[in-house]
Amino acid sequence: MKRREFIKKAGAGALAAGAAMGAVPAMAAKPVMWKMVTTWPPHFPMLGEGADYIAKLVDEMSGGKFKISVYGGGELIPPMGVFDAVSQGTVEMGHGAAYYWSGKAPAAQFFAAVPFGFNAQSQNSWVTSGGGMALWEEVYKPFNLKPYLGGNTGVQMGGWFNKEINSVADLKGLKMRIPGLGGQVLAKAGGNAILVAGGEIYTNLERGVIDATEWVGPYHDLKLGLHKVAKYYYYPGWHEPGTTLEAIVNIGAYEKLSPEFKVILDTAIEKTNSWMLCEFEAKNNDALNELITKHKVELRKFPDDVLKELKTYADQVLEELAASDPMSKKVYESFKNFRSKIYEWNKITEEPYQQFKYI
Amino acid sequence: MKRREFIKKAGAGALAAGAAMGAVPAMAAKPVMWKMVTTWPPHFPMLGEGADYIAKLVDEMSGGKFKISVYGGGELIPPMGVFDAVSQGTVEMGHGAAYYWSGKAPAAQFFAAVPFGFNAQSQNSWVTSGGGMALWEEVYKPFNLKPYLGGNTGVQMGGWFNKEINSVADLKGLKMRIPGLGGQVLAKAGGNAILVAGGEIYTNLERGVIDATEWVGPYHDLKLGLHKVAKYYYYPGWHEPGTTLEAIVNIGAYEKLSPEFKVILDTAIEKTNSWMLCEFEAKNNDALNELITKHKVELRKFPDDVLKELKTYADQVLEELAASDPMSKKVYESFKNFRSKIYEWNKITEEPYQQFKYI
Repeated sequence: MKRREFIKKAGAGALAAGAAMGAVPAMAAKPVMWKMVTTWPPHFPMLGEGADYIAKLVDEMSGGKFKISVYGGGELIPPMGVFDAVSQGTVEMGHGAAYYWSGKAPAAQFFAAVPFGFNAQSQNSWVTSGGGMALWEEVYKPFNLKPYLGGNTGVQMGGWFNKEINSVADLKGLKMRIPGLGGQVLAKAGGNAILVAGGEIYTNLERGVIDATEWVGPYHDLKLGLHKVAKYYYYPGWHEPGTTLEAIVNIGAYEKLSPEFKVILDTAIEKTNSWMLCEFEAKNNDALNELITKHKVELRKFPDDVLKELKTYADQVLEELAASDPMSKKVYESFKNFRSKIYEWNKITEEPYQQFKYI
Repeated sequence: MKRREFIKKAGAGALAAGAAMGAVPAMAAKPVMWKMVTTWPPHFPMLGEGADYIAKLVDEMSGGKFKISVYGGGELIPPMGVFDAVSQGTVEMGHGAAYYWSGKAPAAQFFAAVPFGFNAQSQNSWVTSGGGMALWEEVYKPFNLKPYLGGNTGVQMGGWFNKEINSVADLKGLKMRIPGLGGQVLAKAGGNAILVAGGEIYTNLERGVIDATEWVGPYHDLKLGLHKVAKYYYYPGWHEPGTTLEAIVNIGAYEKLSPEFKVILDTAIEKTNSWMLCEFEAKNNDALNELITKHKVELRKFPDDVLKELKTYADQVLEELAASDPMSKKVYESFKNFRSKIYEWNKITEEPYQQFKYI
């Protein structure tokens, strides 16, 4: 017997006996209904699926009493309207990535992707156990937003190129679709960082409006068909070594949740954060193999001197960001402090691990 | 209180008092009460705390209706009795590591630590998204157990030594506390793998009963005071590059849970799995620095030819394990298949990431 049927029957009995109803209305209370808007196309593989997964877990853990309807970008709110919609309480929740909001909160960029910044493991550790989350909350609090680690792509690819990058000189004049801090780094190297929406990348590359583009990784890049319009596939993704997605929740809406629904929501999102990385790690290589063997994509590594030059510019971009905004400075200090420690630790753990595989 | 009893009592109450019955009795229903036994000392930092964390999350998400009492090793069941106690349903749940049960289920070792095996990220990906979990469930099903990834230490340290390891010859006759597959590898290299319980390591090392020991990582090793009785601290932890802890749940007990409590339990454990790695990553380096700067510990890297020799023996140990047990063979095939793919992927992602930090 379902609870609702039971209440009905119990209620009927009680009424027959001339009794009052007590707490029945509370038990029959409507579920909490939330809306989550996202920056992704509806059910977009892995990223949009992550948003769906959060809603599924919350629904299941609450026994259907807390339901979140997930909307793809544009279905309810335009992708780039997610931050404002959740901030203003138009909807309770959003899913995207923090670097989309750099115009509103420059410091948010540290919680998405930093050129030559953290990989997924270090980003998770910094945010969860190294003081990062308190700062992220501080960045978002003025916007009535509570942030969460909401997924991770792992180390991304460097992008698709129609010209080879053999030296620093090849970056000069390069027209590349590369957003955010990575774009600023490329600009310092003499390139043109061009903004192109996801849906227009293919055509722009095909028509030569751009010479190169970054996207996500083999799994997504294959789906977008970028191998049909670009020759070379470069690695590593220096500009996004562990891109973190985010869930954002309107603080007022969150405060209205019962204590158990708060933890259910928190835990569902945190589970999704690790699940998504597992999916990326498990699926990217198969797609890469298909690109190389079936579609004859040429895999290339950025030369060390190119990476070195880009890294120098990346440091400058971060210093400038910190100098321009007190909150960014505060976050950058924490980031640098954690970086110095985790690099030391990596040196005797993950670094030799990556080496001894081939020994 | 079971639903049937409730209905009975509710009916009786209505008849007796003609009173406001509502749903109050249902709300006052007794919580589900579980016991979790662990292989760790009570509230042992990070590992035992992980078990506590699972219970806390389950309690909070269920609004106090699903409570798990956590017991340290020996409080209710001896540490090495955890598997049987959960298998037989004496208690509903356990927390430990799968390699402790190699005598009962040899294939379980792949889900704890494999010499020159996976780091945390690859282990999580293999188990979660690469087919590993289905196999782990197959390994444990005959024991009425449902397994979970229940925490990860990250890449461990190589251990504490009172003699330097400068060549393969130095491994011969080495008396080292190193359990499991790692111990078998050392034995092939001519060493003596000696079983010593955690609580006796210090004294054994002090008295020269053993020349060396592995433990966990700087955070735990510092607490155990191993720097007082050993000179050299070696890395990397070739024998345990991403030690996975486990939660195990009695299948019969699990099946009795409501659908929402099942997902609450699943998600609480999965959240703990990623939380623990964050804690290890964030705290180990501070402890390492204290060991080096304050306690003057000498940090050493195993020479490449030593690692190479150990890796050769590790392959032999795994091949022999697979040859001796059909289930181990099946798991090993999946492990190898995933390894070949993830190594390829690491090569263009995590590997250059570890390098470009220094570029």
